[in-house]
This record gives sequence, structure tokens and C-alpha cells, in this order.
Amino acid sequence: MDEKGILIVVSGFSGSGKGTLMKELLARYPDTYALSVSATTRAPREGEADGREYFFVSKDEFEKMIAKGELIEYARYVENYYGTPRDYVEKQLEKGRDVILEIEIQGALSIKKMFPDTLLLFVTPPCAEELRNRLVGRGTETMDVIQSRMDRACEEAEGMEDYDYLIVNDSLNRCVEEMHAIIRGEHRKSSRNREFIQKIKQDLERLKH
Amino acid sequence: MDEKGILIVVSGFSGSGKGTLMKELLARYPDTYALSVSATTRAPREGEADGREYFFVSKDEFEKMIAKGELIEYARYVENYYGTPRDYVEKQLEKGRDVILEIEIQGALSIKKMFPDTLLLFVTPPCAEELRNRLVGRGTETMDVIQSRMDRACEEAEGMEDYDYLIVNDSLNRCVEEMHAIIRGEHRKSSRNREFIQKIKQDLERLKH
Repeated sequence: MDEKGILIVVSGFSGSGKGTLMKELLARYPDTYALSVSATTRAPREGEADGREYFFVSKDEFEKMIAKGELIEYARYVENYYGTPRDYVEKQLEKGRDVILEIEIQGALSIKKMFPDTLLLFVTPPCAEELRNRLVGRGTETMDVIQSRMDRACEEAEGMEDYDYLIVNDSLNRCVEEMHAIIRGEHRKSSRNREFIQKIKQDLERLKH
Repeated sequence: MDEKGILIVVSGFSGSGKGTLMKELLARYPDTYALSVSATTRAPREGEADGREYFFVSKDEFEKMIAKGELIEYARYVENYYGTPRDYVEKQLEKGRDVILEIEIQGALSIKKMFPDTLLLFVTPPCAEELRNRLVGRGTETMDVIQSRMDRACEEAEGMEDYDYLIVNDSLNRCVEEMHAIIRGEHRKSSRNREFIQKIKQDLERLKH
């Protein structure tokens, strides 16, 4: 069966809990999944390590990576670049690990266009009110920030139907297992197992005689 | 989220163990799944009960069902009709149960054409040799029968790639849970949750103000 890894893009509303969800998925199944580490030109924040949170590179280095085609997607926010190094992703997929990228919709759709086998997952709370309640509940955000997050959520919701699956984050434990089950299921898609199908057909023909 | 049932068609090689697999799935999750009972004009065999193995009807009755559009698919083998009554299937789907039909490829594809949301599952042993070994291992079949089953398997394999998922039946327990997980995952497809997406978009717009 399909032993090659699947490239998985996870997006979702700010406040949907996708960070926690992915951390937990990786912790439970460390041999199954690999988290892609992005390259960025922004300065490391306290506690961030090069190669763990990000690969921290200069603007020059980043632009060389773009020119050499070493990024499978990149974007520029304000004055900083963010991108996904191709090399790490491809090596992990070859090893049979599913590689998870956490990026926003524009990046997600451009990756899907380039690599149609990419699996797009969208993490959402069970309802819009819940999203607002979580942001308010954090207690660390001003109402202005919450308002701008809700505005942003409206924009983020625009592309929801372009994702393959919705991951409804109501309870962490259930949700991690559901995400895992969805990805395991994807490995059983006929479209991902053309070689297996070809082999069984040939062997059946052979055994007829 | 998606509360309506999914219509699931299960096909597979003779000797792939799909009968046992489905029986076990139904036994473990009786509230989740309903097995569609076919109508047939063939005579009941010993131990078969009307409405359990089949709905046993006369040729006249069956042809009336066809004329009235009461079957979602039917086929004629030798001198007998076999078909799937629409009424039972639709009622179970409305109740939110996933309805499983066990039919062959021609029927499967014609159902998928009429109802594009149908999920097509193909049960296969891990390899062709295994299929042959199982048929031989039963000890109840003559070599002629085994040979004709293998010929038939070659024909059955023709349509494998038209199914959505392959269910590799290596161990019953693992396989039942995998089938269940694949179907649960399908309920999370964006394409099956258009209403949920519409609602969350509208609510987010409302909460902005």
C-alpha cells in the first residue's frame, strides 16, 4: 500500500487551537508525522531556536532560496519573508512520514496547485460564538485585538470550502484522534495506491494460468 | 456538522472476506450503520428469512418496482433479478445512519452516477496470492471452482481504481476499525458540510458588528 508520506497543510482560524492540536498530534505519533519548519527573515524572538521554530535567514539568503527554487511556497508579510524549504519536506515524504505545514490559505492553495496530492485540513471551532468566546477567555487580548481577530476570521472563512476536510476542535483528545484517523484514511484512497492496484491486477492475471 | 447518513457501496473480490467484515462492523456499531436489504426474485434458501437476507418477491412484483422507480439499482443474473429498494435506504439516511450496500461494480458505478455523494469501498486482500490461498484454504471448493473464481477476480479488479478507498483485509479487527475510521473521516469532508460552512460564515459576519 501507499508507503510514501502525504503533504498536509493545516490552516484555521486564529484561536481555533490548531497550534495545540498539532503539537499533540506530533507528540502522540512522532514516527508518523514531521512538522515542516519554515524559513523566515524576521528576527528570532526570545526562546526561539534556529531550526526549531524557524530557520532564521537574512533577506539576501532568502532571496537566493527563492531564485534557486528551494522553497515550495513563500509569502511576504509587512517587511518579512516566510517560506517552506523544499528539501526537508521532500526528504521526510520519501521516508514515509506525513509532513505537516501550518500556513494560510493563499499558501495552501498554491501548494495544492503545484502538488495536487496535498491534503488540506481546516481547523475550526464548532461555531462562530465559540471562536469569540475563546479569544475573550484568554484574557490577554484587548477588545480591539479581539475585534480585529474576528474581522480576520471572516476573511479566513472565505476559503473554507477549498479545504478537503474540516477538523472541528471541540475537545483536544477527540480532535487529535480524528485528525489522525482522517490522515490514515487518506493513505487508503485508491488514487494514492495506483501501484498497489497495478500489482494486484498483474498478479491475478499471472495466477490465472 | 454533517448529520445526514452516507450511502456506502462495498464491493470486493469473492474470498476477500467482505461479508465477515461487514457483519462485524454492523455488530460493533449498530446505531451508526444500517445494511441495505436487497429485493430478489430467487427462491429463499434454507435458513434465509424474508426481510433479513433478502426481500423475496415475485417476478411480477419486481418488475412493478422497476416501473415505479422504487429501486435505486437492479441487475439480472441468469433468470433472477436483484435490486436495492430506494425507500429503506432513504429513510435510514434521513435518520443519520450510514447505509451499506454490498453490490458489484456495475451497480456501484451506476449508483455513484445517480448519487455522486456515494462512498465506494473496495475490499481486497493484501496481495493476489493471499486471495488464492484463502480460496484453496476453505477446502470446500474444487480446483475448477477456484480457477473460475480467480478468473472472476481478474474481471472484478478491472474497476478497482473507480472506488474511493481500498480496504485491505489483512486482520479482521484492524480492518473493521479502519473501515469505520474512513467512513467517520468522510463525514468531515468539506464537500459534505456546505451548510456548516455557510452557517459559520454568516455567524462570523454577524459577530463582527
